[in-house]
Amino acid sequence: MAYAVIFTSHKRADDGYGETSDRMLELAQQQPGFIAFESARGADGLGITVSYWQDLESIRAWKANAEHRVAQARGKSDWYSDYKVRVAKIEYEYGFDVTR
Amino acid sequence: MAYAVIFTSHKRADDGYGETSDRMLELAQQQPGFIAFESARGADGLGITVSYWQDLESIRAWKANAEHRVAQARGKSDWYSDYKVRVAKIEYEYGFDVTR
Repeated sequence: MAYAVIFTSHKRADDGYGETSDRMLELAQQQPGFIAFESARGADGLGITVSYWQDLESIRAWKANAEHRVAQARGKSDWYSDYKVRVAKIEYEYGFDVTR
Repeated sequence: MAYAVIFTSHKRADDGYGETSDRMLELAQQQPGFIAFESARGADGLGITVSYWQDLESIRAWKANAEHRVAQARGKSDWYSDYKVRVAKIEYEYGFDVTR
């Protein structure tokens, strides 16, 4: 079963954030084990990004990616006031689609 | 370790949604095993809600809650165009807070 990385954050600045964020998504999609990505930021400022990966090793490799590490450092120095990362193993899933 | 319920959705209508959504959060917080709740809906319409629970049994009990089941039915008949629920076991977590 796949793994989810749940990243919740509040930002304190935006300078260059969107550009780096787009680049990180592009780069993540090229990593081995990447499955999917979903992101939402509400009007109250809370952002939730969930990425899905084949295994823990893929998640570790993405965290250690050189360009991603530069972005992580800017995240701490410039963009985020706080964030939390939770790595979780998907046990089961189900869904609904009105068109099906 | 705790479990996360990742609920991602798109809505097709809003009628009565906010009221029921507030009530469901209030009710969830009263359930045994409830830990925390985070929610964001972006400008593109994607909503991500993550709730955290002590164990799978608490998650099953909340899903089976009578008032919650009525809300779930309205979710399908009225509010959501699609949603996905993923239940995941948290393996590890870490965070950052600029004020600490």
